[in-house]
Amino acid sequence: MAIHELQVGIDATYQQALKSFHEGGVPIGACIMQAGQVVAVGHNHRIQCGSNIRHGETDCIEKCGHTVDFSQVTLFSSLTPCLMCTGAIILYSIPRVVILDNINIHDYETNLDMLRERNVEVKILNHEPSIELNRQFQRSPETRTLWLGDVGE
Amino acid sequence: MAIHELQVGIDATYQQALKSFHEGGVPIGACIMQAGQVVAVGHNHRIQCGSNIRHGETDCIEKCGHTVDFSQVTLFSSLTPCLMCTGAIILYSIPRVVILDNINIHDYETNLDMLRERNVEVKILNHEPSIELNRQFQRSPETRTLWLGDVGE
Repeated sequence: MAIHELQVGIDATYQQALKSFHEGGVPIGACIMQAGQVVAVGHNHRIQCGSNIRHGETDCIEKCGHTVDFSQVTLFSSLTPCLMCTGAIILYSIPRVVILDNINIHDYETNLDMLRERNVEVKILNHEPSIELNRQFQRSPETRTLWLGDVGE
Repeated sequence: MAIHELQVGIDATYQQALKSFHEGGVPIGACIMQAGQVVAVGHNHRIQCGSNIRHGETDCIEKCGHTVDFSQVTLFSSLTPCLMCTGAIILYSIPRVVILDNINIHDYETNLDMLRERNVEVKILNHEPSIELNRQFQRSPETRTLWLGDVGE
């Protein structure tokens, strides 16, 4: 993936995380790119819709409907995928995942192993704005319980 | 789980599978029980809503919202869970899963291993009506492609 395409994906993903944050939600965004174009964006809907299954990644996958060939896409997420989202990535044979923050989550390394074992290419970035947004949301007393609920704790 | 409670869960799950079938959808149903009561039912929405993420199990988990204590429930599914649903079960620490048909799917045994490794109790039944419904749907030329799309093939 060319640098400018990577930047388009990073920007779209982070904007979705910010959007969710400004809605009062868990600030995790995602996007799906195909042939250099963003074909879907999504974010966590735990707070906004009371959803348990619309994480950033699954929200994106949902929005693709049945017209996108998942074998040709790259999925971006502003945080390392949980096991449900990891399962969805493998279910639909998505070949590449770009993660903007792998720091603010502690026990999802096995999910990355699972992706790699299934030949998913995993690229981990250190996107400072995403890292800082997740860090703030985790640490703030007002939002810490929302974060914990989202990761099943 | 008492026999009559098990029967309530089986019936609710199979009715959801039939409902989806009669809607023209993939005939997989699920239910969630807590303390002998059905607290949520769900079914696959791939055809009805063009959904990629609302399988029977995730549809049920979604409908529970944030009021159900997942650590106290039993999830029933009319077919062995895919990896996305397996991940959702583990994410929310659901402790027991009852599967009505583990015959009409060939490569999901590792999902069951993953559940068991995380101390999820897995009970596999041979519920003939569910097995027959899945078998028909898989084999019929009219519905085979719908089935394959749902399992990511």
